Amino acid sequence: MTSGLSDALARAVDGDRQWDRLMQMAAIGAVEGTGVDRPCLGERDRAARRLLIGWADAAGATVSVDDAANLWLRREGTVPGAAAVLTGSHMDSQPRGGRFDGIWGVIAGLEVMTALQALDLRTPHPIELVAWTNEEGGRFAPGCMGSMAWSGHTPLERFLEVRDAAGISFGAALDEHLALEQDLPRRPLGGVPHGYVEAHIEQGPLLEAGGRRIGVVTGIQGSRWFSVTVIGASAHAGTAPLRLRRDALQDAVRAIVALNELTRDPEDILRFTVGRMTVSPNSLNSVAGQVTFTIDLRHPDAGVLGRIGDAIEATVRGALSGTTARVTELFSAMPVRFAGNVVDAVERAAAAEALSHVRMPSGAFHDAQFAAGVCPSGMVFVPCRDGVSHNVIEFASPADLAAGARVLARTLLSLAGG
Amino acid sequence: MTSGLSDALARAVDGDRQWDRLMQMAAIGAVEGTGVDRPCLGERDRAARRLLIGWADAAGATVSVDDAANLWLRREGTVPGAAAVLTGSHMDSQPRGGRFDGIWGVIAGLEVMTALQALDLRTPHPIELVAWTNEEGGRFAPGCMGSMAWSGHTPLERFLEVRDAAGISFGAALDEHLALEQDLPRRPLGGVPHGYVEAHIEQGPLLEAGGRRIGVVTGIQGSRWFSVTVIGASAHAGTAPLRLRRDALQDAVRAIVALNELTRDPEDILRFTVGRMTVSPNSLNSVAGQVTFTIDLRHPDAGVLGRIGDAIEATVRGALSGTTARVTELFSAMPVRFAGNVVDAVERAAAAEALSHVRMPSGAFHDAQFAAGVCPSGMVFVPCRDGVSHNVIEFASPADLAAGARVLARTLLSLAGG
Repeated sequence: MTSGLSDALARAVDGDRQWDRLMQMAAIGAVEGTGVDRPCLGERDRAARRLLIGWADAAGATVSVDDAANLWLRREGTVPGAAAVLTGSHMDSQPRGGRFDGIWGVIAGLEVMTALQALDLRTPHPIELVAWTNEEGGRFAPGCMGSMAWSGHTPLERFLEVRDAAGISFGAALDEHLALEQDLPRRPLGGVPHGYVEAHIEQGPLLEAGGRRIGVVTGIQGSRWFSVTVIGASAHAGTAPLRLRRDALQDAVRAIVALNELTRDPEDILRFTVGRMTVSPNSLNSVAGQVTFTIDLRHPDAGVLGRIGDAIEATVRGALSGTTARVTELFSAMPVRFAGNVVDAVERAAAAEALSHVRMPSGAFHDAQFAAGVCPSGMVFVPCRDGVSHNVIEFASPADLAAGARVLARTLLSLAGG
Repeated sequence: MTSGLSDALARAVDGDRQWDRLMQMAAIGAVEGTGVDRPCLGERDRAARRLLIGWADAAGATVSVDDAANLWLRREGTVPGAAAVLTGSHMDSQPRGGRFDGIWGVIAGLEVMTALQALDLRTPHPIELVAWTNEEGGRFAPGCMGSMAWSGHTPLERFLEVRDAAGISFGAALDEHLALEQDLPRRPLGGVPHGYVEAHIEQGPLLEAGGRRIGVVTGIQGSRWFSVTVIGASAHAGTAPLRLRRDALQDAVRAIVALNELTRDPEDILRFTVGRMTVSPNSLNSVAGQVTFTIDLRHPDAGVLGRIGDAIEATVRGALSGTTARVTELFSAMPVRFAGNVVDAVERAAAAEALSHVRMPSGAFHDAQFAAGVCPSGMVFVPCRDGVSHNVIEFASPADLAAGARVLARTLLSLAGG
């Protein structure tokens, strides 16, 4: 890579074109003014995919689709047989989601391809843009099905019987979708790319709070999810003396206080969240007989995540006063550390753009988590206002998105040997 | 009153007949083996009332109904114009209630009347048995509508627009019911009785735990109900650093811990219950944006109830860390102290029966709370197994119920000047 080519490519990245394309995408499934409701493999998802396909020519790319309906735009390289450098993200949204989560990573990759095409610049390695199927998990849970199936993390077959709220299976939705896209060439799942870079809004407040324009993502923190059910005995709120109660809500409070102590982190890196609580019978004048709450624990260090996660059950039990508890681990994903060459390339690109930047782990899941199991991977973050995401008021500025696309362009060019 | 008459009456109380009548009542709306579902003013309530009316002759009583559908069985006295001594309770049940709550107080009063009739014994004061309408509040909230309307505590009109879950108003249900009971003489609401005594299962564990057969009820503790809404901001559980969160669930936990401290009572007389909590958005991987919980605070001392209840709002606010809170008082009922002559009469009756007994306040509401505003009032408690009530497994033994009926008989005879 010469610095001159990289500068030329960055200059060819057109922030206005990118913003215009984002707003065209935002119109597909627009809700509540600035929101988007675009469930995976529905009509709106298909309309968004067709809009993307319509821009392939301008990007000098050919289109194909794989068995998981991941959509691919490929721009050939100059070295025969060289592995492709991938970029991309997803086009589905949360039910009341925003205009940037996922879709910006797709449009930014397209913008880089379009800039390369405008410069008539071919890279030694091919560059492929991928729009992963069902990242959000809003219609079919869990999310990241497309990247999990592609990477071999989980066989596609495992997801086919998952059903949406209307009872439609993922397999049926996939069959219907692929039948409607029969005009597109089919490509096999899998492959060993040369690298993967995903651009995304941060979905958190750190860049904005720190006044940084670019997040150089070093990995994705690990997560462990638990469900805790505290089983006591319901009783009459007026008659039962407190010393004779087995109050499930009070013991849940004691457990949460003890868990706060267990998870205390002066560096504020660990994430501990009790987001869901249900109380039974949930009656004003009845002592709670049963309470269920969830725990979302995250940390970028596998050792910390393992040690603290393993201590949760004993901490809960030690806090109880008269009740019993059932602790179940619902989900576990160990931390991913991104490849040094990709992280360095992102950092160099931000420096070349003279953009303030910081190395940071990602707090949220992304498809890059699964690509990282297959090839050297990384991510580029840009700030989003107040850290808000998964919400119709989600916002990232045109200037920040343009800067992010320039960093992505330089990074892809570097990885593709341009 | 002569001791001989009282002894004779107590001997004439028939525990088997009382139990048999209770089991006949339990068959009307029987659910889940030993449970009862008999909503107020429904068909099953009417069937139970008709069963009671069918026993009026054996009790030497005449039947009437008032504008609130309270059902009255009157046994005349010997002194012209003397005010009646009242006894009774309610016949409606919780949706999945038991066979004893309320209905036993009605059947026990009937048993006393039947024993008087068997002895051909007339008291100077008339004795009236009342089955109050809608004590439970299970179909139309709040409960105790019948006794509140009769006592003048709240005008009947105030309840007419209250609707059940099917959208039927209390007024419409009352009109329909009274139309179906047109054969019964109508009596006016109100009056100034000579006294009121209500027999009831304890609905708490104290008698059983203390090995006592009879509770001499000294009053009904006061209650204050509050709703607390903690307003924070939802955020992504993976990305939002803890120091930047405004976590409504964590602040609700802090508030409850502070309220536990405020309400701590080494004597274990105060009742503090958080029975209901709802979390929004109640999502595993989202920080809670809003939490609402309720407070049920009870104490027999008006001063304590006033002081602690008044400190709740400041205690909640003082515990918050970044959120705001809205504290609303939903309901307030000051403590009731029962009349010394009635309490003494119950205690003497228990002593005459050589039953272990204890003076105690009632933790639960009862219709006696409203009768107490009109005339000298009191209650007789018997133990219920494990203190369980408002539950299909609610149980009181035939022997305890027979003992309770004998205490009621002696008390009523004493008050009625027999």
